[in-house]
This record gives sequence, structure tokens and C-alpha cells, in this order.
Amino acid sequence: MPDCSPAKWHLAHTSWFFETFILESVIPEYVAFNPQFRILFNSYYQTVGEQYSRPQRGLLSRPTLDEVLKYREHVDRCMISVLEDAGTRATTAAVIELGLQHEQQHQELILTDIKHMLSLNPLRPAYSRVIGPAGEAQAQNWSRYEAGLQWIGHEGDTFAFDNEEPRHRVFIEPFELASRPVTNGEYMAFIEADGYERPDLWLSDGWYAVNDQHLRAPLYWEFRDGAWFLFTLSGLRELRPEEPVCHVSLYEADAFARWAGARLPTEAEWESAACEESIDGNFVEQGLLHPAPGAIHKDGPVQMFGDVWEWTQSAYVPYPGFNPPEGALGEYNGKFMCNQIILRGGSCATPQSHIRATYRNFFPPGARWQFSGIRLARNAK
Amino acid sequence: MPDCSPAKWHLAHTSWFFETFILESVIPEYVAFNPQFRILFNSYYQTVGEQYSRPQRGLLSRPTLDEVLKYREHVDRCMISVLEDAGTRATTAAVIELGLQHEQQHQELILTDIKHMLSLNPLRPAYSRVIGPAGEAQAQNWSRYEAGLQWIGHEGDTFAFDNEEPRHRVFIEPFELASRPVTNGEYMAFIEADGYERPDLWLSDGWYAVNDQHLRAPLYWEFRDGAWFLFTLSGLRELRPEEPVCHVSLYEADAFARWAGARLPTEAEWESAACEESIDGNFVEQGLLHPAPGAIHKDGPVQMFGDVWEWTQSAYVPYPGFNPPEGALGEYNGKFMCNQIILRGGSCATPQSHIRATYRNFFPPGARWQFSGIRLARNAK
Amino acid sequence: MPDCSPAKWHLAHTSWFFETFILESVIPEYVAFNPQFRILFNSYYQTVGEQYSRPQRGLLSRPTLDEVLKYREHVDRCMISVLEDAGTRATTAAVIELGLQHEQQHQELILTDIKHMLSLNPLRPAYSRVIGPAGEAQAQNWSRYEAGLQWIGHEGDTFAFDNEEPRHRVFIEPFELASRPVTNGEYMAFIEADGYERPDLWLSDGWYAVNDQHLRAPLYWEFRDGAWFLFTLSGLRELRPEEPVCHVSLYEADAFARWAGARLPTEAEWESAACEESIDGNFVEQGLLHPAPGAIHKDGPVQMFGDVWEWTQSAYVPYPGFNPPEGALGEYNGKFMCNQIILRGGSCATPQSHIRATYRNFFPPGARWQFSGIRLARNAK
Amino acid sequence: MPDCSPAKWHLAHTSWFFETFILESVIPEYVAFNPQFRILFNSYYQTVGEQYSRPQRGLLSRPTLDEVLKYREHVDRCMISVLEDAGTRATTAAVIELGLQHEQQHQELILTDIKHMLSLNPLRPAYSRVIGPAGEAQAQNWSRYEAGLQWIGHEGDTFAFDNEEPRHRVFIEPFELASRPVTNGEYMAFIEADGYERPDLWLSDGWYAVNDQHLRAPLYWEFRDGAWFLFTLSGLRELRPEEPVCHVSLYEADAFARWAGARLPTEAEWESAACEESIDGNFVEQGLLHPAPGAIHKDGPVQMFGDVWEWTQSAYVPYPGFNPPEGALGEYNGKFMCNQIILRGGSCATPQSHIRATYRNFFPPGARWQFSGIRLARNAK
Repeated sequence: MPDCSPAKWHLAHTSWFFETFILESVIPEYVAFNPQFRILFNSYYQTVGEQYSRPQRGLLSRPTLDEVLKYREHVDRCMISVLEDAGTRATTAAVIELGLQHEQQHQELILTDIKHMLSLNPLRPAYSRVIGPAGEAQAQNWSRYEAGLQWIGHEGDTFAFDNEEPRHRVFIEPFELASRPVTNGEYMAFIEADGYERPDLWLSDGWYAVNDQHLRAPLYWEFRDGAWFLFTLSGLRELRPEEPVCHVSLYEADAFARWAGARLPTEAEWESAACEESIDGNFVEQGLLHPAPGAIHKDGPVQMFGDVWEWTQSAYVPYPGFNPPEGALGEYNGKFMCNQIILRGGSCATPQSHIRATYRNFFPPGARWQFSGIRLARNAK
Repeated sequence: MPDCSPAKWHLAHTSWFFETFILESVIPEYVAFNPQFRILFNSYYQTVGEQYSRPQRGLLSRPTLDEVLKYREHVDRCMISVLEDAGTRATTAAVIELGLQHEQQHQELILTDIKHMLSLNPLRPAYSRVIGPAGEAQAQNWSRYEAGLQWIGHEGDTFAFDNEEPRHRVFIEPFELASRPVTNGEYMAFIEADGYERPDLWLSDGWYAVNDQHLRAPLYWEFRDGAWFLFTLSGLRELRPEEPVCHVSLYEADAFARWAGARLPTEAEWESAACEESIDGNFVEQGLLHPAPGAIHKDGPVQMFGDVWEWTQSAYVPYPGFNPPEGALGEYNGKFMCNQIILRGGSCATPQSHIRATYRNFFPPGARWQFSGIRLARNAK
Repeated sequence: MPDCSPAKWHLAHTSWFFETFILESVIPEYVAFNPQFRILFNSYYQTVGEQYSRPQRGLLSRPTLDEVLKYREHVDRCMISVLEDAGTRATTAAVIELGLQHEQQHQELILTDIKHMLSLNPLRPAYSRVIGPAGEAQAQNWSRYEAGLQWIGHEGDTFAFDNEEPRHRVFIEPFELASRPVTNGEYMAFIEADGYERPDLWLSDGWYAVNDQHLRAPLYWEFRDGAWFLFTLSGLRELRPEEPVCHVSLYEADAFARWAGARLPTEAEWESAACEESIDGNFVEQGLLHPAPGAIHKDGPVQMFGDVWEWTQSAYVPYPGFNPPEGALGEYNGKFMCNQIILRGGSCATPQSHIRATYRNFFPPGARWQFSGIRLARNAK
Repeated sequence: MPDCSPAKWHLAHTSWFFETFILESVIPEYVAFNPQFRILFNSYYQTVGEQYSRPQRGLLSRPTLDEVLKYREHVDRCMISVLEDAGTRATTAAVIELGLQHEQQHQELILTDIKHMLSLNPLRPAYSRVIGPAGEAQAQNWSRYEAGLQWIGHEGDTFAFDNEEPRHRVFIEPFELASRPVTNGEYMAFIEADGYERPDLWLSDGWYAVNDQHLRAPLYWEFRDGAWFLFTLSGLRELRPEEPVCHVSLYEADAFARWAGARLPTEAEWESAACEESIDGNFVEQGLLHPAPGAIHKDGPVQMFGDVWEWTQSAYVPYPGFNPPEGALGEYNGKFMCNQIILRGGSCATPQSHIRATYRNFFPPGARWQFSGIRLARNAK
């Protein structure tokens, strides 16, 4: 899968980020650990220079894991000396913070990429031994939000990515939001109602994907001996209807919503609802590495954070007044603002400290290898 | 080019639309002119049934042009009898209106598709003999628009497509809009400033397109003997710097804007400015079939309508409360609301009566065979 | 289909051949009818210059058929004056002969290309109204040929292509040759015996083609309402088991032969048998445009000529001492001597005067749009 | 590169061969080491069952190298018990011999596949530290062979693959063979004479490959700072003009030969010359892992064996009377007898004990990652 990288590459790339954006500019006469790593572990920074092609990252038998770990130690050691230097300037501190957040993003990608690679292996190896207990899905109901001018986006001293800014006003028509994500059981009903055979339910590009890729179920679902199984980071196991459905594309999320007489929320709707909720939930720290039925019972939406990234219907475009940083770090987010869709809320593979209500994740509409799920919305009067 | 169809196909398809959506439902026991045309000339209506593959439309040596013209006569004759029937209901009238608007859209496509096909022919055949006089570009300046809550979208009894509705509120931050489209001369300056070699100017997918397709100039530009030429519907001729640039993709429009220290307008910005302008300009009725320098001099923006479709930065998504019609006609617009970008204002190939301030055209960001151009915007304080 | 060209292109190309290889070299100060036709109607002669891409030939709406016919008239008129010139040299006469043989080859291609294009048209148009009477297949038996040193290839004053020369010796082990081509009925038995599902019967590349292209029967076979139909130049009609099977690839011919406990003949075996037979049979002059059961009853093989091109197991390689002409005409045959397989004997679309025992036709092993069939051979002791 | 496999896969596959074709049939109630290895490490035996896709072999992070080594130990242990069993039948012994020869083939592939993978790594890692001393190329001259009926192919009790049999007669016209392989220096002259820009020198498919893949030199050649370098198993180093050229495709070999006024030998010519030579030369046992100037000086051809596989002009087709074994092992060679070209003589990566005059290696004409080179031939009178 061209979107996935080996874990070894992620390990080296996150250190490359610190080396390139901190060490090379802060330490006078810094000597690169290996000058060729500048190309090998550059992900997509055109301004930094050439990159080694992503689909070929799997071919890199050299450097070995050992060498990569030495590279990390080297960079870590240098970074500690930078951090201990009382004279470190605010601009440097901001890039260090960015590097840490960047590494958290790759921690999540390591899990999703390993899951994908193991899924292709007929041996079905498991990454983890933990399997959460079976549970029960909460009842689905709707929360109403009134029309009005809302402020969305990030502001203030806490960390946020450039794409979350500036904070600005949007007018939101009245809407309703589902209290919890769609479950596997509900999605099975869509499949059994011939959801994958009804073109009227699908976006045109989605219908093309269904036929071109022969899609009949979410990624990692397998039908064996009359029952659905899921491939998870804990291996293959029977599907539990009460768990939030995940590994669906935007196309599948959108078709399901249309079938259910609803729609996906816009990112503004989602954020205006989420900013009232506390950031609790099933994050990577829980160790489940899989979405689970909601543990918290309360009025209003639950599981807005954790479990599954929730597809919105919003394309990833700049906020009015968006102003990326100068130089290579300006490429971090801005250049992807086309052909991508916003997802919100984090997943069971996201660090809890990484997420917030204004956080904008984005993937192409056909992507399925992230822990991506569905929360419904609908128009209100 | 898989996006283009032969003129013969367009002729048959527009009559197919009337046959399928009017004659078959209104005339009891209507006998199809040829039942196989139902498949052959169905563009993309899954609900109507199977379709003949678009990239293969060029292979249809049968029916001949003569047979297609007979088909059109037959359908026209039946349509006249429907129109003369005093009992025709309002719902039927609405679909007839849609069929007429649909045919106008295909009149424009016939021109752009013929232009593309002729451009591939080494004989360089001309479709038209008309070449407008040389002129002079107006000076570029900026109009300021204040922040505020705006109503956009269509409302009322006049015709509009479903995707222009419902009329709704958006909050717009203060912005400035360029007084006229970007010219060939300005675009040449971008090329000469190595615009196509600077990755920092491009969206990621745009930079991929530049390299993958070896893009160095807009479509139909050719560099010969030290000068730029354009292939036009009147054949190959020297580029005129004063004309609006056209046949650029969203990627090129966006890169140009970034280079120029500006950005593309959102569709809401564009519409709120355009609704103050009268719908005059260089449309298909002028017969130039090519954009020309603005003829009208006034304060504020000119050439908002006609000449070139203007790329916005807005993805094509449903308006809040969007409600497509039931049945096959629901496929007209709604299912394309993904991976497409909004263009506004009509072009020199658009019928004047077809366009309005709320009109939402859309194409994938890489499309270049339409008369698509650039109007700049920028943030204001 | 990238291998097919429109009839208009074939008409122009065959005149282009005379213009380029005769008129331009023989008539002093010859003025080209249209200098751009040099590119447009050049098939593959790199030495002559650039070529217009074959898959795009279908896009040429200009020149129109009328213009092409005028081009042909012009070239014909000039050629007549060349022919009437008593001083025409032997080398020129040889190229004229080549041009005539070349035009015969394109007459056959016009038929096979039209057949392919009409087959893609859901209207199923017929090119001809002639349908031969039903008949009966002759019994299949085997002729034995003894081991020995044989001369094969062409020699002497009559016309032959360069690839048929020089005449040379080959040693042939004893073998047997089937008395007639394989029939549709026999091929149906292969299909019914799961021939398309048994990898052990197929060449590796053939098995890939079966799966990649979902092959289940020869080209132009369709299964409808419990029976097999064939699309022919006379339209769709029921399959007749007694007719020679055609429109099979080398892969299908080879798999069938293996299933039947036989193999395909080598081209040397085929030629050494064919040189004893007279050149009678079902050629294009019969007007059937479809293979038919053999009309001649005799001992030894029948239908060696006409009906279907017979796949051999021989790759298309140069004969020892092969010596292509200097210049562009050296490209006629020699440069294709890789990745192609020899077929022998001509088909129902071949002019009778065009064929001989030494004639070497060649196509890639996956080609199916020619009238290609199967004659079996087997080892003898 | 889809043709290459990781070393780990080769290690497992060669043991899989013994497990599948010996242990499973000879040891009653043999328990598979891991039943899923049957799919994972099956290369292309359709009759054995499903295979794991070759291009995805690189994705198999499991089983680990440790597990594969344990698998090999397990199979080796069982094989030793089979070998020690006095009752082992001749048919089993023949398959064991085949398994050993098969493993030798994969030893060569491990080297060529590692070379390819390392070549893609910007770190340019070396596999070996050995670099042979510089030398001098022998003078090129020609040996003449008279016309006559020759026996070629294998016969007798020593091991040979099925495709080398049966021994049979071929008639060979008189020819001359070059005394040694073409050198890098000679090939550079071809490049400098614009060999890659002259379509008249190339087979049609070769010219397509030149343009499609932008070929300008053999694989692993790099032009840096005004000089040619080679990537070798000992890393990147300056090209030595005296070494045999290698990593050329059949297309390059054929174009070079045409440019040099010669041609490639047929496999019958090659074999009839080689059977007079002793099997000495630069094989894998030398440890150079790279072709070198010939060490032996004598009349007649040298370096027929070792250094580089020599492209012939012969397509890989069955010998008359070819009779593959029943069952899965019949797939070993026979099903590839289409679209492949014969190479002869072994290379610097081939075990010396593995090669003989009748040995038929084969690759598609575009393949370049093997140690493939050129020996010229020409017609004699």
C-alpha cells in the first residue's frame, strides 16, 4: 500500500524532523549523522530537497534497525543539549513542540501501517494480545443545536497546528447530531439491505470505487463460514455488533448516512458541538487499539473523542486568513488543502494529549486504513 | 481525452434527456425511437439503467449523424405536441425547463470538446473564422468588501439548478477582489519567474500533476520559434498578452495566486460581489469563442460574467439543507459533490441566458479543457 | 482497441505508401498533396519521420472522408503516369509491387477492424447481408510426414516479402498434421470440460490473460439464453458447431491443443505440408467473410489456405541470412521479429492472390481480432 | 521490482520445494512445519495451489528470518533422514536432484535480487568487499563454423532440465562466432555513436522500451562528473572498459549487434560451438561477483561459460518431442515457453557445477537485472 511506511522508516523520520528543523539551524557547525538520511527520511518537504519515494520505503534493507536506533540516540542526545540550553529562543521552542506533536502523529501511523501490513500476511500475525470485553451499544438519539454565528478554530497560547487557525466566525443553520458513532451492527444492516449494490446511495466517485475495488464491506472485514470477522491489531476475531464501525471511507460513510436518512456533519457543526465536551475516551493509552462501545452514559453526544476519527462532509480548505509559516514548515499542512476530507475527534490509536476540539485531521475520501468511522447529523427546522 | 464526447453524441444525448424524462413519462404508450439508445445516450444516470462507457463514445460509427438528426426530429416533434397540450402540468414544465438548460450546457461542451479534438489533429483545423481585434488590458485594481453575514444561493420562481439551493446565510470576513481576470501577459510573467519549477508555490497534488504531465504552460499554449502561440477555435495564432488567461487548472490558478501574493476567492465571496453586477459580457452569442479584454470600463470588478469561468477555492459541497429531487434527476448534480471545485461566472462559450450570480459550475481540480481562468482575491483587515 | 484503425485511415495510409515510397523519389519536384499527411498517415516508419499515435487515429475528424478520397485520386493519377512511363526501373517496379501487396494487407485489416468496432456497438450493426448455408464438418484425421531435411522459404522471381527469404534448410522430425482446422463444436467441448479453469493446460502468460481479461470463450462469442452466439460481419447469429473456430489467441490455441493431446505445428512443418497443396479455399473473394466447413474432400489436409489463419508454435524470428532492404522499407517486417508468433495460410478476409505457402503472417500471442484459428499437429515416431 | 524477491523468501522457497515435492510424498503422515507456508512460499505452481503474490513478497515481515532458518533446519533434518533411507527410489532421487539444482538457481537469484535492491538505496550499500584487479581485454576475432546437421540438446544419465531434451537434429548454415563477449568499451562506443537515438537499429518493442523507460545505457550505469560508473555488488565504482558489458536487455544486445554489423547467435549455433569448449571461467566460486576480462588465451572462443549470460536470438520454444513430467513439476519450465528469449553459458553469479553446454536459461527480452551480456555472430558464406 503506497500510503504505508515501515515502522523503521517512521522511527528515523521523526528524528530526521528534529535534526533538520532544530539541530541544523540551532547548533553551529552541526555534523549530520549521515548526510544521505536527509533524502532518505524526508517525507514530503520539497523545500528541504529531494525525497526518497514513499512506495519504495519498504525496499530499504539499509540502514538496519540497529543503525536507525543509533540515529535516534544521536539526535535525542543533541536535542537534550538544546533543551538544557537556557538560551533557547521561543521560535525554537515552538518548532520543538511541533516536532513532538509530529512524533505523536507518527506513533499513530506506525500502528495503522503495521495493522495494514499484517493484514496482508496470510499468517495473520497479531501485534497485541489485548482484547477488550464484549459490551453493549448505547441507544442512539439526537441532540439539537440552534442556528447561530459560531466561532471556530484555535486561538491562544496552547499548541495547535497552523491549519486550525485563525479563529473565525461561521454561520451554522440548526442541526441535530447523533449521540454516538454508528455501530458494526447498524452497518451490517446497511450491507444486508444491499447498500453496496444501490448506486442511488453513493457519490459518483464512491460508486466507481465500489465497482473498481469490488468493495462489499469495510476494510478488514471478512466473511467466513456464515459470519463476519474483523482483522484487528489483536488478530482475527469475530465481529462484535456493538462496537463502532471503523475503516470505512468517506464514500462508505456518506452512502451509509444517505441510506439512514441522515448526512455527515460539517466540520463547523462538529466543532461547535465538541467544544462543549470533555476530552475523555478510548485513546491509545487504554491499550485496546480498537474502538469499543461507549463507557460514559450521559445526555448529549458521547465518544466525540477517541474510538474512531469521524468523517465530516467538509473538504479540507484553508480557514479565512490562514497563514502558514515561512519556509519548509509551511509545507506541513497547507499544501494538502485539496482533494482531502476533514475528520475529527481522534481514535483508539491517537494519544489523548494530542487531540482537541479544533483539531483538523484530513485524508483522501477513499482512505480506509485509518480508524475512521461515522457519526450522523441531520438538518433541523 | 476521456472527458470529451463527439458532437454527434451530445446531439443525441440532449434529445435522449427529453425522451427519457418527459416523453416516456408523459405520453402514454410512447414507443422509443430506438430502445437501445436508452443505453447508448445515457450519460451517467444509474437509476435509468446501464450506460455506454464514455471513453468509448468515439467508437460509435453507428448510428450515423443522419440517424441522430432523425432521432432529434422525432423527439422534437413529440416535444412540440407535449408543449401544445394545455394540460401539461407544472412538474412536467419544470423538467422541460431543466432539459432546455441541460441542452445549453451541452452546447458549451460541444465547443470545448471540438476544440480539444481539433487541438490533437496535426492539421490544426479551425472551427471558426472569427478572430477578435487586438486590444488592451485594463489596469488591475482591488475592490474591498466588508465583513458580514450574507445570503447566498438561489430563491424564487426563476430557474436554478438544485445545487444552488437553498438560499442560506454565510459569514464572510473582509476581503478584496481583483477588478478583472488575470491576463496572458501576467501569466507569462509567472512562467518566466520559474513558476512551474517552484514546489513551494503549488498544492501537493498540483506539483504532482506538473511533474507527471510535464506541465509548463496552460493547455493549448505552444512555444514556437521564440514566441508563444495559442490554439483557439479559430486555429493557431500568436498569444495576445492582454487577453484573460484560460485553460488553466485549479492547481495553476492557485499557484499563480500564491506567487502573486494573493489567493482565489471563495464561492461565497464571489457570489456576494457578483450579485451587484449586471450579466453582460463576452458570451457565446458574441461569436468570438475566445476571451477578450474587458470592453466595459467602470469602478469595481468587470468581466465577472463571460470570458472565462473563474476558479474559486471552494470545494463543491452541498448547501445546508440541500435537497435533490427524487428519482433519476436527483443524480443530476448531487452525486458529484466530492473531489470537484466550484467555478463561477460563465465563459465565452456559455449562452448569456444560461448564467446568473448563483450558478455553480464544478470540475475536478486538474481539468483544463474548459475556458477556465483566474480572478484574484486577498484578505482585508 | 489500440490495434485497430478507422477505415478512413487505412484508405489514406495505403495511398501515403505510394506517395512516400514512389512518387517522392521518382517524380522530380513532386509536390505533396498535403505535407502534414506525411505524419498523419505514417504507420510505423521511424526512418520516414514522426508518426501520429495509433490509438489516437480514431480522433481524426479531419481530413474528412471526402478529402481522403481526393487524396487517393491524386495519388492514383500520379501513379498511373509513373506506370505509363516506359522508363520505370526495376527497383521502382519492385516497390510498386510491394505497395500493391501492402494495400491487400490493409484491405484485410479494414474488415477485421470494422468487425471489432461494430462488435463494441450495442446496436450490433451488420457490415454484410451474406450468410453462408449451414453445412457439416468433415471427419478429423491425421497425415503423416517423414523426418528429413527440408527447404523452406521463398526463392525466385515471383513476389514475396523479405521475411520469407532466404530459402534455407531445416531438419524436421517426423510428425502428423490434422486434416482440417478445429471446429466450434470441438472448441465448445474444451470449454465444457472446464478448459478455461485448468491452469495445467495453459502457458503461464496465457493463464494470466485468462484471469486478467476474464476470458471464457473466443472473441465475439456470446452466451445468451442458454446458447452460444457469434458476432460476425453479418451481425449476431447462432454459433454453428461445424465451422472452424476463429478469433482465438495463441494462448487459447495452445491450451486447446494440449487438452486435445496434441500440439500446434511449427512453421516449418506447416510449410513443408502446405507446399504440396493448391491454393484454393474460402477467401475474401467468396464474400462469406466468415470461415466455413471445408468444401473440398480429399486425402490429406484440406483448408490449409483460406478460412482461418493458423497459429503455429513458432516465434517470428529471422531466417538464417535474412537481409532486409536498406532504408525505411527495411522496417516493413524486420523490426517486429520479437514477441510475435507466426500464423500461416490466410483467412476468409484475405485476397486469394495475396497468399502462398511461404507467407509468414505474425501477431502477438494474445491477439484475437484477426480470423485466427487452430490446426493440430503431433509428434510421430 | 516485481521480478525480485527478498533473500528471506528465496531461503524459505527452496526448502518449500523439498517439503512439497519430497517430504509430503515420501514421508507417510508428514506434518507440515506450517501449513500456511504452502501458499506463502509457492512460487508459481498452480497445480500445488494458491500462491502469495510475488510483488508483495517484500511485505512479509512475518515469518521472521529466525523462523525461516528454523523452517530450513526442520526440512533439512527430514531430508537427511530421507537420504539415509536405503530404500529411496530412483524417482525420488531424481526429484531430490532437481531440488538441489533448483536451489542453485535461487542462489544466483539471491545475488541478482540483492544487487537490484541495494542499487535503489541512496546509501549505495555494498554486498561484498572484493574488487578484482584491472586488466586488459583480449583482441576480438572470429571463428568459422561450417554448415551441417548438428545434434543439440541433452541426452544420457547426467542431470539436465526437461527443457534441454530430447536431443535432436538441427541444420545450421555456416556462421562465425566472436571470440569473446562485447566489452564496456565497445558498448560505450555504441552509446557515443547515438545508438540509443537511432530507431533504425532497434527492434520495434525495443525502441518502445528505450523511449518509455528513457534508456540511455545498461542497467546500473551512472554518468557522474563526466565519467561512467557502475553499481556492482561491491558498491559503486568507475566503469572499466575492458570488462564484458552486462545488464543489457535482449533489445540492447540486438541493437548493438546491428550497429556492429553483426547479429546475435541462435541457440543452436551457440551450443554447437560451446560443446567443444571446457567449462572454465569466472563463476560464483571465484567470488568476484562481476564479469572480468578473459584469463584464458587460446584460439577460438573464450569465456563461453561464466562472466555473463549470453543473449541468443532464439525464442524459448519446446524442442521437438519435448515431454514435461506429469503433475506439478511439469510447470517447472514448460509453461514459460512463450515471450521469453534463450540465454546461454552462465554468469559470474552461477555455480560452476550448475552449468553445461546444453543449459537453456530464459528471460523476457526486456529483462536487465540478470548478468546478461552479448556475444556477436555473423553469417558466413
